Amino acid sequence: MENKLSQNDSLEKFRHSLAHLLGAAVLKLWPETKLAIGPAIENGFYYDFEFSQSINNDDLPKIKAEMKNILKTWNQFEKIEETQESANLHYQDNPYKKDLIKEIIERGEKITSYQSGDFVDLCRGGHINNAQEIDLEAFKLTHVAGAYWRGDEKNTMLTRIYGLAFENKLALDAYIAQQEEAKKRDHRKLGKELRLFEFSEAVGPGLPMFFPKGTILRRLIETYITDLQEENGYEPIWIPHITKGELYKISGHLDKYDSMYPPMKLENESDYYLKPMNCPHFMMLYKTEPHSYKELPIRWTCTTTNYRYEKSGELTGLSRVRALTQDDCHVFTRPDQIKQEIEIMLNMIEQVYSDFGFKNFWVRISTHDPKDTEKYIGDQKIWEDSETILEELIKARGWKHEIGIGEAAFYGPKLDFIFKDAIGRDWQLSTIQLDMNLPERFDLEYTNDTGDKERPVVIHRAILGSTERFLSILIEQYAGAFPLWLAPVQIKILTISEKQLSYGQEILSTLKKAGFRVELNNQNETIGKKIREAEMQKIPYLLVIGDKEMEAKSVAVRKRGTGDQGQQSLEEFIKNAKNEVGIKI
Amino acid sequence: MENKLSQNDSLEKFRHSLAHLLGAAVLKLWPETKLAIGPAIENGFYYDFEFSQSINNDDLPKIKAEMKNILKTWNQFEKIEETQESANLHYQDNPYKKDLIKEIIERGEKITSYQSGDFVDLCRGGHINNAQEIDLEAFKLTHVAGAYWRGDEKNTMLTRIYGLAFENKLALDAYIAQQEEAKKRDHRKLGKELRLFEFSEAVGPGLPMFFPKGTILRRLIETYITDLQEENGYEPIWIPHITKGELYKISGHLDKYDSMYPPMKLENESDYYLKPMNCPHFMMLYKTEPHSYKELPIRWTCTTTNYRYEKSGELTGLSRVRALTQDDCHVFTRPDQIKQEIEIMLNMIEQVYSDFGFKNFWVRISTHDPKDTEKYIGDQKIWEDSETILEELIKARGWKHEIGIGEAAFYGPKLDFIFKDAIGRDWQLSTIQLDMNLPERFDLEYTNDTGDKERPVVIHRAILGSTERFLSILIEQYAGAFPLWLAPVQIKILTISEKQLSYGQEILSTLKKAGFRVELNNQNETIGKKIREAEMQKIPYLLVIGDKEMEAKSVAVRKRGTGDQGQQSLEEFIKNAKNEVGIKI
Repeated sequence: MENKLSQNDSLEKFRHSLAHLLGAAVLKLWPETKLAIGPAIENGFYYDFEFSQSINNDDLPKIKAEMKNILKTWNQFEKIEETQESANLHYQDNPYKKDLIKEIIERGEKITSYQSGDFVDLCRGGHINNAQEIDLEAFKLTHVAGAYWRGDEKNTMLTRIYGLAFENKLALDAYIAQQEEAKKRDHRKLGKELRLFEFSEAVGPGLPMFFPKGTILRRLIETYITDLQEENGYEPIWIPHITKGELYKISGHLDKYDSMYPPMKLENESDYYLKPMNCPHFMMLYKTEPHSYKELPIRWTCTTTNYRYEKSGELTGLSRVRALTQDDCHVFTRPDQIKQEIEIMLNMIEQVYSDFGFKNFWVRISTHDPKDTEKYIGDQKIWEDSETILEELIKARGWKHEIGIGEAAFYGPKLDFIFKDAIGRDWQLSTIQLDMNLPERFDLEYTNDTGDKERPVVIHRAILGSTERFLSILIEQYAGAFPLWLAPVQIKILTISEKQLSYGQEILSTLKKAGFRVELNNQNETIGKKIREAEMQKIPYLLVIGDKEMEAKSVAVRKRGTGDQGQQSLEEFIKNAKNEVGIKI
Repeated sequence: MENKLSQNDSLEKFRHSLAHLLGAAVLKLWPETKLAIGPAIENGFYYDFEFSQSINNDDLPKIKAEMKNILKTWNQFEKIEETQESANLHYQDNPYKKDLIKEIIERGEKITSYQSGDFVDLCRGGHINNAQEIDLEAFKLTHVAGAYWRGDEKNTMLTRIYGLAFENKLALDAYIAQQEEAKKRDHRKLGKELRLFEFSEAVGPGLPMFFPKGTILRRLIETYITDLQEENGYEPIWIPHITKGELYKISGHLDKYDSMYPPMKLENESDYYLKPMNCPHFMMLYKTEPHSYKELPIRWTCTTTNYRYEKSGELTGLSRVRALTQDDCHVFTRPDQIKQEIEIMLNMIEQVYSDFGFKNFWVRISTHDPKDTEKYIGDQKIWEDSETILEELIKARGWKHEIGIGEAAFYGPKLDFIFKDAIGRDWQLSTIQLDMNLPERFDLEYTNDTGDKERPVVIHRAILGSTERFLSILIEQYAGAFPLWLAPVQIKILTISEKQLSYGQEILSTLKKAGFRVELNNQNETIGKKIREAEMQKIPYLLVIGDKEMEAKSVAVRKRGTGDQGQQSLEEFIKNAKNEVGIKI
C-alpha cells in the first residue's frame, strides 16, 4: 500500500504540474485569457479559462506544441509567499483568482504562488521536483468543454481543457485503448443498437423502460438467480413497493437514509413512502408470526424494484439508476447457524461467477475495531465468532482478500466482492452483511429449545446487486454478443426467396417447440442484407434456407464470430444448440 | 329485464315495509327509544335507533316475536300528508326525524308519514300493498351493530339492527347457506390458515405481503398467463413503477384520474407519481421509435404492480387492494388487424376460463350511442366496424351476452367478462377495450405501405384482471384445496418414526428433481398428528412411510378428499402425479 500511495502522490504532482504548463501555454497563445483554476483529477488534469475568443478541439495540437516550447525554459517550481496586498496586485485583473484569494484568507491559510520560467500562478503547491521530469509522451490533451465557475450555473461559463496523464507512454496508451474498448462496449450505445432499453424525458431520468429483448434478458438473469436460490433452500416472498412511514420509523431509515423519494402526503392518513430498500418489509413479515428455533434458518428472497432518488448528475445508463431491482435475501438465523449459512452463500456466489465468467475477483472483509468496541451494537461474542467464520471461509477457498479492520458498520461485519471485467475495470457485485440492529429495532424473536425467547441474527445478501447494474456489466462484458443461453434472440431463420416461406415457418415452429427464442426474416430483401442485419443484432446462429436446404430438409448454419458452418440437418443443429445452451459462458 | 326490475322493486318494498315493522316492535318493547332511519338495503333492511339502554344480539328473538304480534294488527300503509308544523309536532322529541324534516323542506319536497296499526313513521313511501302479505318466514334479524347518525363520526353513535329478507323462505335459506359457504371459503380466513399472505399496520391497509406459499401461487398464476401470452405472439416489456407528472399530463390522467396516490414533490424537478395504470408508459415506449406497418401488430405485455389510493373502508382482503398486479397488455394495431387481434384475445380468455373451471360466464358488449355520435372521438367507421366485429365474434362462440348501447367510453367500444363462481357470486374478470384516444394524445404513428403516417388503434386487454383479485377468487373457488398444478405444496412426506429419515430424504430429493413442490415432516410426533396437520394445509398428496414402505421401496399414498390409496412404487406415483399436473382443473 505504501508504495502505491507514494506513486499516486507523485502522479498527482505530475498532473498538477501539467495543469500549470497548460495555463502558461494558453496565456502565451492568447494573452487576453483569464486563468481560473487547474487541478489534477483522476486520470489527468484540466484548466478552466475565460477566453476572449472561442477555441475548440482543433486548437489542442497548437496548445500542446506551445507547452513543449515553454517546457524548455522551466526548471524548479519556485514558491512565492504573498501578502494579501501583493496577491491582489498580482491578480488584479482576474476575478477568479481574487475570488480564490478571498477564500484562502477566510480559511486563515497562507497565500502562495508558484513560478516556473516566467509563468506565475496562484497555487497551494504540490508539483514535481523539476519540470524537466515531465515526459511529453505521457500526457495528451483530450477535449474542450464548458464549465461554470465553481460549478454553479449562476456564474460565468468558462472553457475547460482536459488532459490525460500517466506514469509513462505505455500507461497512457493502455488507458486510451481501454477507453476506446469501453466506448465500443458501452452498454448505453449497445442498449440502443440492440433495442434493449430506452429512457424518456416524460417518465424521468434514471427510470429505464425495457423493450422485449431487454425484458427477456432481465427475465433470464432473474430466473437464473431465483432457481439457484431455491435449489439452495431459499423461499420467495412478495412485498409491495410502498409503505407507511411508520415502518421506517421502526427501522430508523426515516431519520438516517437520505436517498428516499419524498413522501406522498395524505390528509387523513400518515405519509406513504416508495421503498428504497426491502429490509424493513422483510422484518415486518417475519414479525407477523411467532417462530420456533426448529423453523430457523428462514431464508427469504424477493427480486423487487427499489427506488432511490440519486442525483440526476450521477445517473449513468443502467449502471446508476433510480429504479433498481435487487435480488435481495434476508436469512433469519440462530447464531449457531451463521457458518452454515455463509457457506451456502459463498457456494452460490462461486457458482454465479463461474457461470458468468467472472474469473478475476477479490473479497473485502470488513470487521469491527477491537480498540473501539463501544461503537458497535450486539453480542461481542457473535461479532468475534462471525468475523472468524468469514475470514476462515474466505481463506479456505483461497480467494484473494483484504481485511478492513474497523470498516464494519455498527451493526455487523460484512463481505464485499469486487471483480475485474473483461477490460480491467473494477465492479462491486455481491455483498454479505450481518445485522444485529434490525432484529433489535423490530424486536424479532424465536423460541429456543428450552422455551425462552431469543433474538435471531439477520444476514442480508445480494449476489447480482441489481438486475439493471448486472445487465450493464453483462452487456459490456460480452460487448452485446451474449452466450447462447442469454441471447434474447438465439436463432434467426433467413429465407433466400419467398419460395422458402412455408419451410421457414415449419423450422420456426419446430425450434420454438424445442424451447429456443427464434425469429424468421422472410422480407423481400437480398440474403446479404438479411445476414448483415442479423449480424448487427449479434444473434448467435443464423439459419439460411434456399431451395437446396428445402429439398434436403436441412439448414445452412452461420455461427456468430465463426461464420459458415455448412449444411446440417435440423435435428443435428437442435442437438448441438441444446448442448451449447447448457453451458453458461 | 322488465320482469327482473319489477321483481326487485317489489322486493325493495317488502324490505322497506319490514323496516317499519322492526321500528314498531322496538318502540313497543322499549318506548323510550328514538327512531332514526330504516331503509331497504341489498339483501334486506336495517333500522337505526337511539336506545335508552343497550341491547344486543340476544334481544333479536324477542324483537322478532313482537314484530309477529304487531303484524296481526296491520293492513294498509296509510299515507298522511303533513305540514311542516304538524310534522315537527309529531316528531318533537326526536332530533333525527326533525333533521330529516328540515332536509325534506330544503329539497322542496312534500312531507309524508305512513301509518300501519297504531305505528306512524316519517317516510316518503314505497311499501307493499298490504302488510298481511309479509311472509314471516322470508326474513331474519341477523345482528346488532353501531352506526353514527348520517355515517359521520362527529354525530351520535346509534344502534343498528340488520335484517335479511327475500322473496320467500327458500330464497332466504339459499342466501344464508351461500353466506355460510362463503364464510368457510373466505380467502382472508384461508389466507391466514394456509399462511399465504398477511397485512401489517405499519406497512398500511390494502398492501398485502405474501409468505412463500402465497408467493408461489402468485408466480404460478403469473407464469401461466405469461406463457399463454407468449405462445400467442405477445412480447414482454418492463416499465418502472413511477413517472414524472409530465407523462400523465400527456395522457390526461392528471386531470381526470382520481385514485392516484399524491405526488412526490421535489424542489428542483417536477413531481413524481406512483403509477395507477400502465397505459401511458406503454404509449411512451412505443413512441421512442419509428414504426412501420410491417411491424404491426405490436403486442406488448407487462405483469406489474399498480398503486391506487382506494378508500380504506372499501379495502377487502385481496379482492380490493391498493397494490394490484395487472396482467396488462396493449396491442398497437392497424384498423384492418382488429378482428384478428380480438380473435386471439378471445381464444386466450376461453383457454383460461376452461383451465380454471370458470364455466358460467357472460359478456357485456359496450357500444356507442348512434344517436349521440358527437361525444365519441376517433373514426366513425372504425367504431362501427369494430363493434360489428365484437358482436359477431361473441355470437359465433355462442357465448351469453348483453349489448349495452351507449355504454362505451368516449374512446372506444369494450367487452367485459363476468363469471359466476362456485357459490353463485358474480365477478368481473377480463376486459378488452379499444382505444382511439391515447394514440391521439401521444401522437402515435406508423408508416403505411405508401409511406404516409397513420394512427394505430390501441387495444387494452387484461385476462385475469389482477393477480391479487384473481387469487382471492381462486382461493374461494377451490376453498383453498388447489388442484395439483396450483398447490403451493403438492406433496408432503410423513415419516412414521425417525428410522425412515434417510429414506424420506431420498424420496424428497427424487420428487424435487422430478419437479414437484414437496415437504418432509420428520418431527418427533405421531403419524396421526402429522396427517391431521397436513390435511389442514389441504395438501393434495401425503406420502406416509414406515418400515414396510422403506423395505418395499414404496410409499403409502393418501389423496386429499379421497383418503388412503394404498402402497405404490415411487415411480408409479410420480408417473400418475405428472399426468395429473398436466390437467389444469
